[in-house]
Amino acid sequence: MPDTVSFLVDPLPVGATPEFLEASFREIEPGSGALAVNDLAPHRGDGVFETLAIVDGHVQEVEPHLARLANSAQLCELPEPNLDQWRLVITRAAERVPGQGEFALKLALSRGIDPGTTPTGWVHVTPGADFRAAREEGIRVVTLDRGVARGAGERAPWLLLGAKTLSYAANMAAIREAKRRGADDAVFTSSDGYVLEGPTSSVIARFGDDWVTPPPAAGILHGTTQRSIFAHLHAQGRTVEYRDLTVDDLRRADAAWLVSSVRMAAPIVELDGAPMPVDHAATAQLNAYLLGPRD
Amino acid sequence: MPDTVSFLVDPLPVGATPEFLEASFREIEPGSGALAVNDLAPHRGDGVFETLAIVDGHVQEVEPHLARLANSAQLCELPEPNLDQWRLVITRAAERVPGQGEFALKLALSRGIDPGTTPTGWVHVTPGADFRAAREEGIRVVTLDRGVARGAGERAPWLLLGAKTLSYAANMAAIREAKRRGADDAVFTSSDGYVLEGPTSSVIARFGDDWVTPPPAAGILHGTTQRSIFAHLHAQGRTVEYRDLTVDDLRRADAAWLVSSVRMAAPIVELDGAPMPVDHAATAQLNAYLLGPRD
Repeated sequence: MPDTVSFLVDPLPVGATPEFLEASFREIEPGSGALAVNDLAPHRGDGVFETLAIVDGHVQEVEPHLARLANSAQLCELPEPNLDQWRLVITRAAERVPGQGEFALKLALSRGIDPGTTPTGWVHVTPGADFRAAREEGIRVVTLDRGVARGAGERAPWLLLGAKTLSYAANMAAIREAKRRGADDAVFTSSDGYVLEGPTSSVIARFGDDWVTPPPAAGILHGTTQRSIFAHLHAQGRTVEYRDLTVDDLRRADAAWLVSSVRMAAPIVELDGAPMPVDHAATAQLNAYLLGPRD
Repeated sequence: MPDTVSFLVDPLPVGATPEFLEASFREIEPGSGALAVNDLAPHRGDGVFETLAIVDGHVQEVEPHLARLANSAQLCELPEPNLDQWRLVITRAAERVPGQGEFALKLALSRGIDPGTTPTGWVHVTPGADFRAAREEGIRVVTLDRGVARGAGERAPWLLLGAKTLSYAANMAAIREAKRRGADDAVFTSSDGYVLEGPTSSVIARFGDDWVTPPPAAGILHGTTQRSIFAHLHAQGRTVEYRDLTVDDLRRADAAWLVSSVRMAAPIVELDGAPMPVDHAATAQLNAYLLGPRD
């Protein structure tokens, strides 16, 4: 059974006849030539994506990811994705990899061949990296200015700050900058000193019994893993809150994490070179929850 | 003779033996599957590009474009491009399209297959659109906040503001926003009210005998067409200057243009709904210069 699989998807409009779904995508050899060089994904980073975890055969949080995909597509004025089609592709892709272990499933919807309005799509599944050290021992994080003021996304929707687009070059550069500074990952801050998000993660901080994350209105993605954790904590009777956090607030937290779909909850052990308290019990509990089957 | 051609390029390191160059790229069917879905260009918009004009068989300003490609690659920590290779691919691609008329040649250098460090590359040539109306009658422009303060690029190089990356989703969204507002194109402004650049162009304004453009240090690309125009004006004894411009400054200009490699010089006839003076004589002279062979 392969541990890496790729599918090329011909995105269908909403309402397409169900019997067309199964023939609307096909498995391709991973690494093979699939996308045209004038597809607007490679050409312009002009498309949207989601990354989902597969844990022991179960694809985590399919519906929240698909809801965010649809929202990202709307913000980018892409055709509304046919979620029945994407559900089926996700199922077929997950069936093709081993039923034990962790995998990352990335799906993408591109604006398509330039010029034109016919989207293209794909799914690519790879084995999950070994994140045990990040989950158990934690990560060192540096804050990096994203250059924008808090709330810029609401004032300037063309910046697409709330959409998960394929234009991630600066996110990747921020992670390289963090590593150059001897850290493992970054937290973006607004130009006015507020905590935003990681380049590929959300920030959650605990202050006593309050669990806090910055609000999406700050100009960040609404994290699917953050939402899943908040729902879990809320069900346990904990206090969860969307609230603006300054970098100083984050420094004073009793514990903080970067959370994301595939790495799950990584406790921040060091922020800009200063140690942060680590809540090992809560971290273990969060990751046990996140690694269990979730819908 | 085709009017659209594509080449897939296997980027060579600097110093590769010259006889390897000719075999390091190959023509492919335009629109055919060429890039892997886990190539970091479609995956992350993680690569750099240049767009060059071909006018009546002559590729314009090859060396300035290649110099900027090398600079963008350095800012993105990509391997240094082998410019001999890119010169040869550009020559071969330009030979494949008709020797009369205008064409746009886009070349791109991606970080390559994820995970890994072997870059991929391509060239795609298409017929130039009919830009006579834009060049002669002009364009309506709206200012759109880019959300960042002037100079953010120098303070936060991980934002890659000075690199021409493939992550152009927000640039494309800004052009859609401009059209929604009844305009043809946009000018990005900094959050502190300074003129930056168009989503795919540079801004040049004339105040009396002074020709002004915002400095690259503002956090913008150094435009190859703007530089070519400034060299041309300077050779004619005109005064050219890199200077910060507020939006109010731009409104008071005696004339202003968006300049870019393929559309050339498009006079701004309207800024945020208010008419701008148009210098038809200078516009015609600039475009005559830009459409002549330039190196």
